[in-house]
Amino acid sequence: MTTNSNTTTNLESAISTGLLITDNDLNDLIKIQGDLVRKLKAEKAPSEQITEAINKLVSLKKELSDHQAINGEEQTTGGEKLLKTPRGTRDYHPGQMKIREQVFQIITDCFKRHGAETIDTPVIELTSLLTEKYGEDSKLIYELKDQGGAEQLALRYDLTVPFARYIAENRIATMKRYHIGKVYRRDNPKMTRGRYREFYQCDFDIAGDFDLMVPDAECIKIVVEILDKLDLGQYKIYINHRKLLDAIFAVCGVPDSHFRPISSSVDKLDKTPWHVVRNEMINEKGLSPEVADKIWSYVQMHGNADLIDKLRTDVQLMTQKSAREALDGLEILFRYLTLYGVMDKITFDLKLARGLDYYTGVIFEAVLTKYQYDPQLGDDQVAVGSVAGGGRYDELVHKIDPRQRRVPCIGASIGVERIFAIKEHQMTESKIQTKTIETEVYVASAQKNLIEERMKLCSYLWANDFKAEMALKRNPKMLDQLQYCEKNQIELCVIIGSGELEAGIVKIRDVGTREEFEIPRAQLVEQLRVYLTKVRQRIQESSSKTNNN
Amino acid sequence: MTTNSNTTTNLESAISTGLLITDNDLNDLIKIQGDLVRKLKAEKAPSEQITEAINKLVSLKKELSDHQAINGEEQTTGGEKLLKTPRGTRDYHPGQMKIREQVFQIITDCFKRHGAETIDTPVIELTSLLTEKYGEDSKLIYELKDQGGAEQLALRYDLTVPFARYIAENRIATMKRYHIGKVYRRDNPKMTRGRYREFYQCDFDIAGDFDLMVPDAECIKIVVEILDKLDLGQYKIYINHRKLLDAIFAVCGVPDSHFRPISSSVDKLDKTPWHVVRNEMINEKGLSPEVADKIWSYVQMHGNADLIDKLRTDVQLMTQKSAREALDGLEILFRYLTLYGVMDKITFDLKLARGLDYYTGVIFEAVLTKYQYDPQLGDDQVAVGSVAGGGRYDELVHKIDPRQRRVPCIGASIGVERIFAIKEHQMTESKIQTKTIETEVYVASAQKNLIEERMKLCSYLWANDFKAEMALKRNPKMLDQLQYCEKNQIELCVIIGSGELEAGIVKIRDVGTREEFEIPRAQLVEQLRVYLTKVRQRIQESSSKTNNN
Repeated sequence: MTTNSNTTTNLESAISTGLLITDNDLNDLIKIQGDLVRKLKAEKAPSEQITEAINKLVSLKKELSDHQAINGEEQTTGGEKLLKTPRGTRDYHPGQMKIREQVFQIITDCFKRHGAETIDTPVIELTSLLTEKYGEDSKLIYELKDQGGAEQLALRYDLTVPFARYIAENRIATMKRYHIGKVYRRDNPKMTRGRYREFYQCDFDIAGDFDLMVPDAECIKIVVEILDKLDLGQYKIYINHRKLLDAIFAVCGVPDSHFRPISSSVDKLDKTPWHVVRNEMINEKGLSPEVADKIWSYVQMHGNADLIDKLRTDVQLMTQKSAREALDGLEILFRYLTLYGVMDKITFDLKLARGLDYYTGVIFEAVLTKYQYDPQLGDDQVAVGSVAGGGRYDELVHKIDPRQRRVPCIGASIGVERIFAIKEHQMTESKIQTKTIETEVYVASAQKNLIEERMKLCSYLWANDFKAEMALKRNPKMLDQLQYCEKNQIELCVIIGSGELEAGIVKIRDVGTREEFEIPRAQLVEQLRVYLTKVRQRIQESSSKTNNN
Repeated sequence: MTTNSNTTTNLESAISTGLLITDNDLNDLIKIQGDLVRKLKAEKAPSEQITEAINKLVSLKKELSDHQAINGEEQTTGGEKLLKTPRGTRDYHPGQMKIREQVFQIITDCFKRHGAETIDTPVIELTSLLTEKYGEDSKLIYELKDQGGAEQLALRYDLTVPFARYIAENRIATMKRYHIGKVYRRDNPKMTRGRYREFYQCDFDIAGDFDLMVPDAECIKIVVEILDKLDLGQYKIYINHRKLLDAIFAVCGVPDSHFRPISSSVDKLDKTPWHVVRNEMINEKGLSPEVADKIWSYVQMHGNADLIDKLRTDVQLMTQKSAREALDGLEILFRYLTLYGVMDKITFDLKLARGLDYYTGVIFEAVLTKYQYDPQLGDDQVAVGSVAGGGRYDELVHKIDPRQRRVPCIGASIGVERIFAIKEHQMTESKIQTKTIETEVYVASAQKNLIEERMKLCSYLWANDFKAEMALKRNPKMLDQLQYCEKNQIELCVIIGSGELEAGIVKIRDVGTREEFEIPRAQLVEQLRVYLTKVRQRIQESSSKTNNN
């Protein structure tokens, strides 16, 4: 790209990760950036610089309008052509794609290390498959217009229900699979927090009737391996059990029919203070204040494996079979997680509920310590929320399958959009310029009318598996060619002229040091390999020095 | 997967590639497969075998119903739960994903070798962006239901219009980018020919005001490199120029307003006989028979660069400025393609028109010789159609950009779904069993109550970067564990028992040869690496022997 939208200032990086941005912050940033644009124009700064400043201003205004849209203020479109992606969606620029590829690589490497195979399913599914699977969140499903076909279609909301369909449709008994794909939710986008309407999920699931907690432990182990390799800083994994929650609701006096809606309320406690949730339970969901407060006395509890013993002394809770089962299960799970060496990351937390209806057993969520919700700080803060989560869903395949086969499942999902935002922030902080193209040899000429010679040379290099480029002009300027090499961190430049052609030589330029060497044309391929190795070693050494400083 | 839906017979492979399948063929295959199921049941064959046979029968019936749906016969749903993907879409199974990954790898390697960066855009776009871009095909755009948002949304129809939006929105002057993503068309699916309603496109485009035919030649060079690396057999690349077509229409007496609709008719000549197209031109599009026949006299012409000289002797055609420009351009293009060493693949073909409205210059299409339409064979055959195509679209960004910037572009698109189908067929023919999981070490035990030891050992192997797995049961049978290893072509099995644990040793089993070795536990990591290298060498050697036979 000529307009390099990847060079980021601290200001822009704050937006792109945007972990602490409010409307007021945005208004301030827009004012500062507006002043900068006016200043650059007054100074008659290079047009590239002005364009870049304007681009940032535009993106800030877009952020603000997305923020305001959350509060119901839609953007005014006026009469002019709209040029934007749909609300809550975004383009990935080349620098962001580089980060995305690296994150996906780490995640798929881990899935493969655990013996998973991969599948893909369509982005569109029959609407009938998706209804009644997501509880309160069903209203967030995107449906397609009826355009005269026989089928009612919708965009997938997650990768779990399509996986259950896949298992049922193909009569699969056991499968360990991963799936990376986009999903769609008509949610309030909070793009500064990495929350979008179109976003990627990376799911790992184990389907099949195995022994208690063995697959569950592996799913949690995988989340730990991935978060460690991604190097996102400290984190905690919160674990709970749906059957334990149900038992708690029962002993508190919640009617059976209210278990899932009350579970949805409890789920909000990770980013909402208790008095707000309590209000919802009483005024919207019809609980008595006593019942709500009794729930609160339970869901505040958290700790390690010792909490199991404490709960076992609760005589009333122990009357519930589901509570006894859940605690027996968690005891085994915690033992396995200890064997897997990850128990230090785990908190047994009774307020963890998870939003979706289909969970039936162990549930878990990973939260980065740095971005965790702090009830002391009140409503102003922006918590990133979880970066991974999952749980056991033993009834979903059974519910979907016309043959009513029962295939118990457990899965983990990595919230990659938030991870992309954090990695982008890390990149900006480290001041490392991302290399978005992989070209290693550029073919240049200082003289006119050598385009055909440049073409022949490029063709020769491609045939020898070099990543090679040349200017797409007949007579490019030497300066433009060299600037392109430097800007894109291309390792070597091969320079040809009529003199070199006659003498049967070529000039190789080390772009980083600007040194030039002449070599016989016949040795081009070997010599380029030698020089490439040298240049890469130098870059490696200098970057490890920078990291050590 | 326990139910291995990847083992394919010739019969199934004919379906999956399905290049020559008619409804009658399908009915015959369903009958044969139904007989097989009955035979297996009568013989009380292993249930796995019966299930597999039934699965094939079901997939054949599904194929037939998709075929019939093309002719307007919708599937009867009855009262029972439907368990299927939407019409014209499909799941990718693990074996198919393996092929897909290999094909994508070859394609992206080539794009990167030519210095392209990559972007991603949302699958959903504002409907207003997509309307009036695709001519007659606009009716095939999927729209989303109005669910109370302020925006009208649609699924993207290709990657080209979103790319033009990206260029305009980000004020980019020059960019060489590739993009791999799914696109959506409410077309008549012909899944046996690799034609879907949801399918992948792999696009490479060069945006920017460069010199005549330099980017155009590189796009065609890239198509050749990719098709050669994919090893799909012989192919031809057909080239034409939109301005030449327009000049031909003008001299034949087609009114200006009819150029695009008549171009659409000409486009059908690659799979429709002339008398049908002629009929459409006269009865649907209002041409006189004389005009239609004059068009036919032109569009039959094809050849190599010499055809340029022949057309230059056509005095009437040469009165058209656009014809002179097109021929001058093609002359340069063919010279560049000769320098790039690909001219032997090229046919200059006046009947190539391309469906989409937005092309303005050079257009091209690659067709596999084996699957090409043969007018001698009449209507019965099924031609796969092109596996790659593209062209120049100099006005699209200008049309979209509110600032009316003009950014000329050219692009190439690889039709990967057809390529997947052909590669699957090649795999089946070669009888190589695809390995869908990458596990290299399996941790097994012959004794009961060793699950915790197996977990510790797996954890140790994962920490040392081995791809490792174990049975997810507390006390799995030895036979099941070994069968899993053999079925999934896992290289090594580490076997532990209480005896081994006490003696501080482990047993390593070479799954392929069934040989077993005892080694000290302390040397496990190094020894596994040594054995893995050995086993892989043996597999490599035996597979290259098979290929040579």
